Amino acid sequence: MPRIAYVNGRYVPHGKAAVHIEDRGYQFADGVYEVTCIHRGEFVDGDGHMTRLTRSLKELQIAWPISPRALDIVMRELVRRNRVSDGIIYLQITRGVASRDHAFPDASKSSLVLTTKHVPPFDIKSARKGIHVVTTPDIRWKRCDIKSVSLLPNILGKQVAKVAGAYEAWMVDDAGRVTEGTSTNAWIVTAKKELITHQVDRAILNGITRIAVLRLAAEEGIKFVERTFTVAEARRAREAFLTSTTSFVKPVVRLDGKPIANGRAGPLTRKLMDYYADYIERPDSKGAA
Amino acid sequence: MPRIAYVNGRYVPHGKAAVHIEDRGYQFADGVYEVTCIHRGEFVDGDGHMTRLTRSLKELQIAWPISPRALDIVMRELVRRNRVSDGIIYLQITRGVASRDHAFPDASKSSLVLTTKHVPPFDIKSARKGIHVVTTPDIRWKRCDIKSVSLLPNILGKQVAKVAGAYEAWMVDDAGRVTEGTSTNAWIVTAKKELITHQVDRAILNGITRIAVLRLAAEEGIKFVERTFTVAEARRAREAFLTSTTSFVKPVVRLDGKPIANGRAGPLTRKLMDYYADYIERPDSKGAA
Repeated sequence: MPRIAYVNGRYVPHGKAAVHIEDRGYQFADGVYEVTCIHRGEFVDGDGHMTRLTRSLKELQIAWPISPRALDIVMRELVRRNRVSDGIIYLQITRGVASRDHAFPDASKSSLVLTTKHVPPFDIKSARKGIHVVTTPDIRWKRCDIKSVSLLPNILGKQVAKVAGAYEAWMVDDAGRVTEGTSTNAWIVTAKKELITHQVDRAILNGITRIAVLRLAAEEGIKFVERTFTVAEARRAREAFLTSTTSFVKPVVRLDGKPIANGRAGPLTRKLMDYYADYIERPDSKGAA
Repeated sequence: MPRIAYVNGRYVPHGKAAVHIEDRGYQFADGVYEVTCIHRGEFVDGDGHMTRLTRSLKELQIAWPISPRALDIVMRELVRRNRVSDGIIYLQITRGVASRDHAFPDASKSSLVLTTKHVPPFDIKSARKGIHVVTTPDIRWKRCDIKSVSLLPNILGKQVAKVAGAYEAWMVDDAGRVTEGTSTNAWIVTAKKELITHQVDRAILNGITRIAVLRLAAEEGIKFVERTFTVAEARRAREAFLTSTTSFVKPVVRLDGKPIANGRAGPLTRKLMDYYADYIERPDSKGAA
């Protein structure tokens, strides 16, 4: 069965899925995206992704290409056509095609592109081994709260990680504070057993998995604080982990080559991994796309 | 005659010119570009644009899609096919098509897209009327020296200008200093008749027209200083103007709604406009693309 993508109203073979060279997503990074996890054929936190997409579009004044309701139908149809049970669906909306000019075009129809693919489900056993993280300067723009495709600094950061043999790079601002990973949110547990992740502001993207983990922490009576933390704090943390739609919850066992605590997944991290693995089976984690 | 674009080795009708949805330019803004002016069938400062393109590609570790020599041939052929005598040529190179993953793909062939179009030549008489500029916070990333397609903050700034009825927005950093326009470099002439533009560093893109105007100033014995200037300095400037490949040299006569000096193009600005108009006729402004 050939892989099928959706491009502006049509289901097309992936290899032939194309957009015009003057799509503003291509020339100006003038677009937004979402990556949603599919678990047992259902979207995980579909409502959360739609809420964030709505916000991103609004912040950039990009019109919906089709109604949210129609988008949900299209997403489900694409998943069905590709027979994806566990995997992800990638959604990109741009301001559309227009003769190249920086300012918003007076008239353009937003572009909508969707792809989906199989990805193995959350393998908690393998994830417990943990991953390595390096730090890199946060050189991004000042509106990281918008999930835009303007990702060049993120890919440069991820490449720093790849070259260092690490899974992720945590980005550090001028004051030595960790903002987030290049495609994940960053968390630590301090010596005082305080669970910490960066507060929601323009310096980070408010991850859907981040929101879910905070909710699980609250449900389980785990104390947490949303505040900035420095690289120095992270180095002497009791535990560290990261979260994202595709990484779920992953223990960080080394930072810049040095072990975090004893270099193994910490007890609170392991608990949250278990809670999250349970969460994605719960009916309340399912929703419209 | 239909308009022709060049996409990855083929000359195609503009309306059908497309790139794959997983081109990294579309998903990650992982690409660079150049806009070169065509004057009487010749590229203006073609060598300068190629030098800058070489640097941008190197900084991002993007491979040349074809050799610089082959690129020059393709650019000339595209201009010929479109019969452009006065206009611009737009060139975009991205890291190419790869399954979506932030880090650089182990193997991908860089994408090359070119378009050209007719644009009326530098109309110095009309340009002397001057244009209006507004200021807006500079929210861009920290590598503005790379001419990347990661232009979302720039388009948001240009839109601020458009909504305000202005031609351009000058971007202002946290210390109140003007870095540059959203697609132009910013210049002022102080009360002491000092010609000033931002120094070359990571906060600005070193404009090819900027370089030419500095060269013309040197040739004409006009003193200039490359340094930052504040919005306050710009407000009380004797003259102000902006430069770019498509704007050439344009007097700024209003800043945030208030006139600069007497609200008319200043004498030094007018001189530099004349010099630049002469410059693009000179053989030494012509070069390989």
